[in-house]
Amino acid sequence: MALEKSFNDAMNIRVQHVEKIIKDYLPKEEGYAERVAEAVNYSILGSGKRLRPILMNETYEMYGGRDKVIEPFIAAIEMIHTYSLVHDDLPAMDNDMYRRGKKTTHAVYGPGMATLAGDALLNMAFEVALKAFEISPDKTTEIIKACRILADKAGIHGMLGGQAADVDAEDRKRFIDEAELLFIHRNKTAALLECSLMIGAVLAGAPQSEVDKLEEIGKSVGIAFQIRDDILDVEGDEKILGKHVGSDAENQKSTYVTLKGLEQARVDVETLSQEAIELTKKLSARNDFLDEVIEYLINRVK
Amino acid sequence: MALEKSFNDAMNIRVQHVEKIIKDYLPKEEGYAERVAEAVNYSILGSGKRLRPILMNETYEMYGGRDKVIEPFIAAIEMIHTYSLVHDDLPAMDNDMYRRGKKTTHAVYGPGMATLAGDALLNMAFEVALKAFEISPDKTTEIIKACRILADKAGIHGMLGGQAADVDAEDRKRFIDEAELLFIHRNKTAALLECSLMIGAVLAGAPQSEVDKLEEIGKSVGIAFQIRDDILDVEGDEKILGKHVGSDAENQKSTYVTLKGLEQARVDVETLSQEAIELTKKLSARNDFLDEVIEYLINRVK
Repeated sequence: MALEKSFNDAMNIRVQHVEKIIKDYLPKEEGYAERVAEAVNYSILGSGKRLRPILMNETYEMYGGRDKVIEPFIAAIEMIHTYSLVHDDLPAMDNDMYRRGKKTTHAVYGPGMATLAGDALLNMAFEVALKAFEISPDKTTEIIKACRILADKAGIHGMLGGQAADVDAEDRKRFIDEAELLFIHRNKTAALLECSLMIGAVLAGAPQSEVDKLEEIGKSVGIAFQIRDDILDVEGDEKILGKHVGSDAENQKSTYVTLKGLEQARVDVETLSQEAIELTKKLSARNDFLDEVIEYLINRVK
Repeated sequence: MALEKSFNDAMNIRVQHVEKIIKDYLPKEEGYAERVAEAVNYSILGSGKRLRPILMNETYEMYGGRDKVIEPFIAAIEMIHTYSLVHDDLPAMDNDMYRRGKKTTHAVYGPGMATLAGDALLNMAFEVALKAFEISPDKTTEIIKACRILADKAGIHGMLGGQAADVDAEDRKRFIDEAELLFIHRNKTAALLECSLMIGAVLAGAPQSEVDKLEEIGKSVGIAFQIRDDILDVEGDEKILGKHVGSDAENQKSTYVTLKGLEQARVDVETLSQEAIELTKKLSARNDFLDEVIEYLINRVK
């Protein structure tokens, strides 16, 4: 309990740190385009666990990163995560009116403006990341590499590809087998976690072999995180989760639990979790808090 | 007539040239995400005047650019233009089922997949542009500058900002005065033309003073182009335009013609056109075809 409290405190300090940075890169609500700036700021502020920016900052610091070159990327990764949620909630997709107890962007600003707010966030992620060249002209090579990881992991070969397979299966009532479900989880969920861990290391100048290991860790953690999500949809506590439970079953959606059963799902989460933890031990740098975040992500009850 | 024919021939050669490049950067239709790749390729292929890639290639060549560093940017600018049309056509925005006689992306793939195809195109534009660092490692400075212009002109301070003001005015039935209409035209339409002209010059190593003049030229041409669009909506020939005429009036939309009258609109197009042509004379390099494209854009009947 004391341990949990100290973990929560450590998390809160980090949330405040990255939120301050993210705010520095948000658009001013002024001029003729003020409404979309409002919708952007509404979407990104006031909720969110900031896991991706925190993971990025952890690997940056553990490999000795100290200057401000990380800051635009901290903002950029949260912008990409946020745009994906804003578009996912649209009437054309999941049509969700609430997320984490807060009205979704389209519920407040309408679906047209919410589409544009998502577009603005995605575009802004690159606009902001490219500012890093100005902040640290001596790190051009590292920044180019980080920008390319960002674009790759967010796009059709990463997050967006996973999301597209998911939407396609739903649109065309296509059955999803285990291989496709793992593809979706790996891309939709794991890709941005991989991206965060990798960019922090790249910007701190870590060697490629470390970046590769972090990619593997992000992959295991992301898939385990998503299987955990499927488990929570079956046995989670609505009050703790703050959302309706059982929606996957109601929607007859293939999940890890429906495909492999609850017991096997639990075993696989544990295996993936162990793989990730074993891999962190092989990294050339240590960061106990990173291990704790990984444990938290995999064993969370909400 | 002979002149017009030779202009059309010259245009066609260029269209083929840039389309070949664009195709090289399109996603393969395979794997679990093949549906969104299909939607991306459907959106960008088979129609489009390729004006932006052509303008970019013209300024690149006129300042002596010769190598392949321009190619990813040629693909990227068309991807950004295409994503903006795909999202603009969505039910949440204009709800258009046809564009240039062809079914829109959401009409074929559904609004969810069309939203994702637009997102994929926007993300891909940066993914592709960043490949330039690999193609020409000796031009890192120019490529950084070009990437930043791309992100800036496409985003909230450029095209997206104009689009957002337009959608906001419609959503909230807000009256648009002349200053706001010029803001919308400048951003929604001119920004990507400015971007194209500027990036070609930047990648060819032209000095900043030339890039600034090209930005001004793009601005005048873009605004004139859009006023011309408003004029054509009043007096254009439906058969030549291939689209319904008079929709602005039916939708009680403020246009340059409703605000300033048809005569003044014609005069202002002429003035902006002259400004653009005068500015091209002040450039340190010459390109007669560029002048012809500008004349074509402003005096088009479709």
